Amino acid sequence: MAAAAPPPPADSHIPLSEPTPCGHELFTRIRLATVEDVPHIHKLTHQLAVFESLTHLFQATPATLAATLFPPNAPPPFTSVTVLLLELSTLPFPPSENPHFTPWHKSLHLDLPIDDDPEKEAFRSNAGDVNEDVTVGGRKGLGKLLLWAVAEQAAKMGYGRVDWVVLDWNVNAITFYEGMGAKILPELRFCRLTGEALEAYAHVNP
Amino acid sequence: MAAAAPPPPADSHIPLSEPTPCGHELFTRIRLATVEDVPHIHKLTHQLAVFESLTHLFQATPATLAATLFPPNAPPPFTSVTVLLLELSTLPFPPSENPHFTPWHKSLHLDLPIDDDPEKEAFRSNAGDVNEDVTVGGRKGLGKLLLWAVAEQAAKMGYGRVDWVVLDWNVNAITFYEGMGAKILPELRFCRLTGEALEAYAHVNP
Repeated sequence: MAAAAPPPPADSHIPLSEPTPCGHELFTRIRLATVEDVPHIHKLTHQLAVFESLTHLFQATPATLAATLFPPNAPPPFTSVTVLLLELSTLPFPPSENPHFTPWHKSLHLDLPIDDDPEKEAFRSNAGDVNEDVTVGGRKGLGKLLLWAVAEQAAKMGYGRVDWVVLDWNVNAITFYEGMGAKILPELRFCRLTGEALEAYAHVNP
Repeated sequence: MAAAAPPPPADSHIPLSEPTPCGHELFTRIRLATVEDVPHIHKLTHQLAVFESLTHLFQATPATLAATLFPPNAPPPFTSVTVLLLELSTLPFPPSENPHFTPWHKSLHLDLPIDDDPEKEAFRSNAGDVNEDVTVGGRKGLGKLLLWAVAEQAAKMGYGRVDWVVLDWNVNAITFYEGMGAKILPELRFCRLTGEALEAYAHVNP
């Protein structure tokens, strides 16, 4: 009973910022983070702490993150702490190269335009019209692209496994991880020595 | 009612290998491991897997451990995976220096002589009459010295915390960790992607 849509005029042009028949086109890139990304990494880490109701444990500042993630004379990527970032843009990313990690590019189609993201401005990166990981991660499961990049890099380097942590009440995440083939290790418990307890223990005479 | 022991003869000499009035004297040293220690590290890791009933997950060989822990062009200690070893000897250790970690020396008195350890020979290191960590760890809680060395190094380097894992049924270990000020994080779950699942996930087209 539905009338067929009329064919578009022969000279029609659909700009990238308009919805295409498949949705809103969006370009993604995964690359190694640099010290210039520390303000974004700090915001993303804090957002995760808010989501996990763990802000009372959140102590990192941009300065401490920079010192930990990008120290002077840092070892090469993937030999120590290494940060990958997922960026989004309504325009294609320029070509870029890195001797340690070839940036990964893909175009996606989202149901909702990235312009609707209320935190777009807060996460605009120095690479142009760009937004990062968590701000849109919940919408389309973009986090899975990052996890895939980590798994691919580990396999490429001959590593035997990839470990990460999840909170036991985050059933959506656990279901997703199990669906991709990960095992949840129910018996392993994290132990943590921090703050005054660390200082006190480090200064006892054993 | 008990008779007092007679005083020792004035010229008595107690060699190091005999029990002293305080027990059996033993010298300990904590130092950075080197690639020469890989056979011992492999045995210690396997012993832990046996204790934890996890030998079905044990895949490491001395060759894979050497490649992972001591790769060519490895970054400096404490910027990536770093192994500290606790050694025991009935004789004092010679002085040694390392620009990244000053070896730590202490003499202890054990209730039982180290010569009684049935695995003494298996863990004899290249540093002489020496035995390592786990073989005697259960006897006198020597593991706590290693944990202390890690905590002291972390505090010295300005790090904010030390994390490790324990199995939830290992009540003795958990009680000990809590006694030293550590928190057990009950909500955090380990996720692991390994073996065929890692290979499969790394090769999908996300």
